[in-house]
Amino acid sequence: MAGKLSIDNFWAVIPAGGAGTRLWPLSRQTAPKFLRDLTGHGRSLLQETYDRLHPLAEGRIVVVTGAAHQHAVHEQLPALGTDGLLAEPSPRDSMAAIGLAAAVLERRDPDAVMGSFAADHVITRAKKFTEAVHTATAVARDGWLVTLGIAPTFASTAYGYVRAGAPLAGHDGAYVLESFVEKPSAEVAQRYLADGGYRWNAGMFVVRPSVLLELLETWHPDFAATLRAIAAEPARMGELWPLLPKIAIDNAVAEPAAEAGRVAVVPADFGWDDIGDFDSLATLLDAAMKVDSEGPTVLGDHSLVHSVDSTGLVVPHGGRTIAVVGVEDIVVVDTPDAVLVTTRAHAQQVKQMVAGLQREGLVDLT
Amino acid sequence: MAGKLSIDNFWAVIPAGGAGTRLWPLSRQTAPKFLRDLTGHGRSLLQETYDRLHPLAEGRIVVVTGAAHQHAVHEQLPALGTDGLLAEPSPRDSMAAIGLAAAVLERRDPDAVMGSFAADHVITRAKKFTEAVHTATAVARDGWLVTLGIAPTFASTAYGYVRAGAPLAGHDGAYVLESFVEKPSAEVAQRYLADGGYRWNAGMFVVRPSVLLELLETWHPDFAATLRAIAAEPARMGELWPLLPKIAIDNAVAEPAAEAGRVAVVPADFGWDDIGDFDSLATLLDAAMKVDSEGPTVLGDHSLVHSVDSTGLVVPHGGRTIAVVGVEDIVVVDTPDAVLVTTRAHAQQVKQMVAGLQREGLVDLT
Repeated sequence: MAGKLSIDNFWAVIPAGGAGTRLWPLSRQTAPKFLRDLTGHGRSLLQETYDRLHPLAEGRIVVVTGAAHQHAVHEQLPALGTDGLLAEPSPRDSMAAIGLAAAVLERRDPDAVMGSFAADHVITRAKKFTEAVHTATAVARDGWLVTLGIAPTFASTAYGYVRAGAPLAGHDGAYVLESFVEKPSAEVAQRYLADGGYRWNAGMFVVRPSVLLELLETWHPDFAATLRAIAAEPARMGELWPLLPKIAIDNAVAEPAAEAGRVAVVPADFGWDDIGDFDSLATLLDAAMKVDSEGPTVLGDHSLVHSVDSTGLVVPHGGRTIAVVGVEDIVVVDTPDAVLVTTRAHAQQVKQMVAGLQREGLVDLT
Repeated sequence: MAGKLSIDNFWAVIPAGGAGTRLWPLSRQTAPKFLRDLTGHGRSLLQETYDRLHPLAEGRIVVVTGAAHQHAVHEQLPALGTDGLLAEPSPRDSMAAIGLAAAVLERRDPDAVMGSFAADHVITRAKKFTEAVHTATAVARDGWLVTLGIAPTFASTAYGYVRAGAPLAGHDGAYVLESFVEKPSAEVAQRYLADGGYRWNAGMFVVRPSVLLELLETWHPDFAATLRAIAAEPARMGELWPLLPKIAIDNAVAEPAAEAGRVAVVPADFGWDDIGDFDSLATLLDAAMKVDSEGPTVLGDHSLVHSVDSTGLVVPHGGRTIAVVGVEDIVVVDTPDAVLVTTRAHAQQVKQMVAGLQREGLVDLT
């Protein structure tokens, strides 16, 4: 199976960062979202991401993560070895993380094509994902920066969009990317959904490392040079890393490259969710579990949860009994040291709560 | 102070029973409501009841409780000694509990007047309470069964009412009781409140033990005889106690005695609450703490509770941080082994939840 799906010289890069603050207290600074099993499958989001990419890139998977999470990542994915893990001394946003992998892979394999896939997203219908990566890799070999465009299933205001332009000659199922568009208002999102020409930007890029660095060089020459210097002399990491600008890959490269006509999009209709908050986690679990209408959805040990006239999401990760009585669309997350109670509609505000805890000096809790 | 307030031959009886199911998981079968500090004063409801009665009846306080709680009651009130505690082998409702105390006190002090005050009620403006007990005791010495009638502060449908009749000759501030009335509908409760002649029946009785037993004898002669037999020979408790009918003192004695013109009422306007559920606990604490409008009311360690745009009641008795985000009138009760989430409006349904746990065989949790 792996042999059939495997793509020659294809390297999978997994940026594993981001605190997942809106999933507190499940996600913590010391144990962020990507290290957690949020789907109830018994594997963390990082492990599921690895499992999904393994058939395509066995032995060619590289995780980029913060030094603080290096140990936990190795524990969850012992097969990575030392070559499969790049540790960032400090968080410097996605351009630095993905650019570092590009600079390393450029030296490791001159024919490399890399695909970058976040460690904390959930993907369903994996076969469609695999097909899209195959298509995108073929396009990337021709020098394009390729992004996957997910068929939107609702008018999301939480995601950015891409608009596909003309079909790409010689590559069935690929298009020139006309433009990236910002997270829209509800009204605009409805228009995008009706239009049919817009796709969710899931931040999944497939590109030759040398092309990515060449594009970066065009707009940020020092940035590219510094990344290549680190790749050439890893011992200089501590000295050079802090010099890198904190900028997202979208702003640093993807958007200007799109304007320059260098970006392609491969539309795909696998299921995708970035589990931005407990509301989207509830939606995801409801769909996955095909729950009946009785009681809240439970992520974890169902026998711990008891309900009367209630709906929502209950996460019993503290080992205690949780009783919910007469509460609709409630979110209850129990952990050994903290309990969160909110509603699906207010799930975004959890970020604000965590910021408050940090302001009060309760950093250990976050 | 105690000397001034003390009432000669006045014995305070404290029936300490009732599971307080609607206050689960704070109240448990093994640690019911009366053993808990529900006011945040650092004393349990039982201890506060004792403290309130101590100046009136120093050395003459008797707690009647289930055998299962005997040890805990002694721990909380070591001053009771063995004479101050009557243990019921099994729960047989309020007539048996209060009747047992009457039969014991009848033998202990021929001039006794007893006052019966539940162990799990909250009373404020204690001076008014003391005054009412003084008045009631004087009336009781003349052979009346006296009940205290609390000035209603809202149109409660959770309490029964009493209606006062003609003033009692020779006793300022006392009236013949015209009738006991059942818990009313909302509409009827409004009428009672507007009328002004109705008072809450708080189940507080002041009476000479021999009068109470004589009244009981009138309608339930075997009941009275059995209680007197137990008091005469405490060793027969195990044999005789199970023979006693399970009946409330209201039905067994107070209501028929009222029809016979033997009951007086002493109106009083101290603050009174039986803390029936978390909604009434929240109301009580809000009033006591004079909280500002920011955030939920907290019973316990305030530093454990963090809120964004939320109101209600949070009880952090599990030692964990509790975060509430965007929830109105929420009730969150955290204990070491169970967490309850409900709303003030649904607080009554907690009883149903506990019944469900018992049906499922999770009796240890209740």
